[in-house]
Amino acid sequence: MPLKGNLLVGQSGGPTAVINASLAGVIREARRHPEITGLYGMANGIEGLLQGRIADLSQEDEEALALLPHTPSAALGSCRKKLSDDDYPRLLDLLRQHDIRYLCYIGGNDSADTSHRIAARAAEESWDMRVVGVPKTVDNDLAYTDHCPGYGSVARFNALATRDAALDSAAMYSVDPVKIVETMGRNTGWIAAATALAREQPGDPPHLILLPERPFDPEEFLRAVKHQVDTGRGCVVVASEGLRDAEGNILVSFQHPLGTDAFGHRQLGGVADYLVGLIVEGLGLKARFDKAGTIQRVFGLAQSEVDVAEAEMVGAAAVARACEGVSDQMVTLERVSREPYRCQPGLAPLEAVANAERPLPDEFIADHGRDVTPAFIEYARPLIGAPLPRYARLRMAPVSR
Amino acid sequence: MPLKGNLLVGQSGGPTAVINASLAGVIREARRHPEITGLYGMANGIEGLLQGRIADLSQEDEEALALLPHTPSAALGSCRKKLSDDDYPRLLDLLRQHDIRYLCYIGGNDSADTSHRIAARAAEESWDMRVVGVPKTVDNDLAYTDHCPGYGSVARFNALATRDAALDSAAMYSVDPVKIVETMGRNTGWIAAATALAREQPGDPPHLILLPERPFDPEEFLRAVKHQVDTGRGCVVVASEGLRDAEGNILVSFQHPLGTDAFGHRQLGGVADYLVGLIVEGLGLKARFDKAGTIQRVFGLAQSEVDVAEAEMVGAAAVARACEGVSDQMVTLERVSREPYRCQPGLAPLEAVANAERPLPDEFIADHGRDVTPAFIEYARPLIGAPLPRYARLRMAPVSR
Repeated sequence: MPLKGNLLVGQSGGPTAVINASLAGVIREARRHPEITGLYGMANGIEGLLQGRIADLSQEDEEALALLPHTPSAALGSCRKKLSDDDYPRLLDLLRQHDIRYLCYIGGNDSADTSHRIAARAAEESWDMRVVGVPKTVDNDLAYTDHCPGYGSVARFNALATRDAALDSAAMYSVDPVKIVETMGRNTGWIAAATALAREQPGDPPHLILLPERPFDPEEFLRAVKHQVDTGRGCVVVASEGLRDAEGNILVSFQHPLGTDAFGHRQLGGVADYLVGLIVEGLGLKARFDKAGTIQRVFGLAQSEVDVAEAEMVGAAAVARACEGVSDQMVTLERVSREPYRCQPGLAPLEAVANAERPLPDEFIADHGRDVTPAFIEYARPLIGAPLPRYARLRMAPVSR
Repeated sequence: MPLKGNLLVGQSGGPTAVINASLAGVIREARRHPEITGLYGMANGIEGLLQGRIADLSQEDEEALALLPHTPSAALGSCRKKLSDDDYPRLLDLLRQHDIRYLCYIGGNDSADTSHRIAARAAEESWDMRVVGVPKTVDNDLAYTDHCPGYGSVARFNALATRDAALDSAAMYSVDPVKIVETMGRNTGWIAAATALAREQPGDPPHLILLPERPFDPEEFLRAVKHQVDTGRGCVVVASEGLRDAEGNILVSFQHPLGTDAFGHRQLGGVADYLVGLIVEGLGLKARFDKAGTIQRVFGLAQSEVDVAEAEMVGAAAVARACEGVSDQMVTLERVSREPYRCQPGLAPLEAVANAERPLPDEFIADHGRDVTPAFIEYARPLIGAPLPRYARLRMAPVSR
């Protein structure tokens, strides 16, 4: 007999351009299962849940639901709450009170950890409930999955933005010979790496891609920048916000006038500023930086349609698997075909996902450490969806006189 | 008898998303006039021209020309060269050598100044040549024109980016209660003002728009931020890079660890960092910033189709007017109808354009100085082209128990 009761869905961690597509997938699939009697949403994830902020999603109108997959950021609201031991009893009470038998939590490692702990606690208390995680993170750093929904779109934004910003630099190299494009990526270089997809021809920008997986060496960096600037076509550098020196220290933290913020967190994002200073002082060259910040992870116009479709697919799969009896697992993406590219949903234990972080593997990083490999391009290209729009390249044939 | 000879076109100053549409307009119109015998382009504006770097645009293939209007940045290359008195004789020699009878220079104030001086010099030397300027600047600060090609697209990007970044903030307000979006605009607030177009309903973000036209008051700012944060929905602040204090000093110049760069120029763009510091120290709140930098002015996907069409129109009009005998003038945009919106090309003397800068007028700035007025919205809305994509707004009706 199927398990009858309500489904509760929540969104957690940094928003993405497609986390609402996963929500739409959850809602679409939940409606197909008569055993799911009510459809509830946490306002602001488990933080809101603990405050009793639960929305009845059956009251949303169809128009809003239709717009959901193409609406960026987390429509339910998100959070970064880490549950304390004291929170679990209250949480379980709430789940019982609302007869929650299906729980889908959309998020990254931390959310997988939370979901696993809730599943374990429910089992201890004999509350029959199925918990299935839905992967989401622009960082693309979850293990056990080919990639993470959200990554394809942030990759598409950064490929587009880097290509356009590099065209700007190419036109203005006599004014601004060096441009830094800072991307997200606190611990891993997946997002920065994706800017390599901006290239159409060998030698196209970005000229350097700086990854947290490789220690930053200021002298080597300045040599590489000078070498590129000397070609007379300007230099475009992509830098991950989480770039570290040989000792593992995040660059810039000790240079920044503000240092650590009031909460003791380092607000990253000062790497570009640091690199600009290095270039100005070390090479006497003008440099400027672009740092799209949170814009990159939620820019609706840059949604990858592959990413949207997969985000919806994993949301729907989580509900379908839960209805089949699966619990304490996260839905993954398995690449079942390279050409044509195709992924299908798989499963991995929430606990395993929670405890792993996947950096860029060595085979995706060029030997000199300042670029990606063709293997990375092959991996990442299908994730950004349609090819980037084609642009004019003028021949600029010198006038014959 | 029509003046027979070659046409030379150049692009100058900061690139935009549509400066190539103006180039396409120049090329299209030039081909319609048999008196224009050759079609030449300056590589990197007058800087390249002085080096004899002139391209024969008749050798470009049709496919490249067809892609040109939707290719961002300056395809001919750009520059920020200010001519010295010594440059003019060499320049005139080059124009004579290449039998340039038509000169179209696409740019802002500085380019208008350059064009006017070239026209005056040619007249002095009795070189019969027509010089017509084509307006271009994301800053929208040229006088004598309703607006400037390039502005509609940077406005569209920033409206889209601010709306999406604000959705991100709304989902994450418990983690990052304050977000700063820094826009371009060294002397004027036109670009920052355009982020007001992100709003669909009253009270929608951005909550504060800081303009260089009004002196920045730190205490007033912190009060306004705190007031908004206290509503429990987070605070999104848009700040122009050229924000100034009551004494007219650019904010942050004295705080920035790098100070002035190697060339004595202040690299602006530290305003967001300054505001983050102010909020952390003054309110004890976490804050982060997004600074799209040059991405905002050239992001191809955010082209306004109105902007593309008008950029092409003013390029074509410059050639048409020159063929009619006009010289030492810049093409302008005249708004001849509000509803439906329609602009047609007009003319203004290059010298007048060169010597004027148009800040946001008082009637476009709210009395308290931290927002725009409905009159600005009415002015700017048609310039960004199609309405922004519609997004889902969930009702989030509380579960009844």
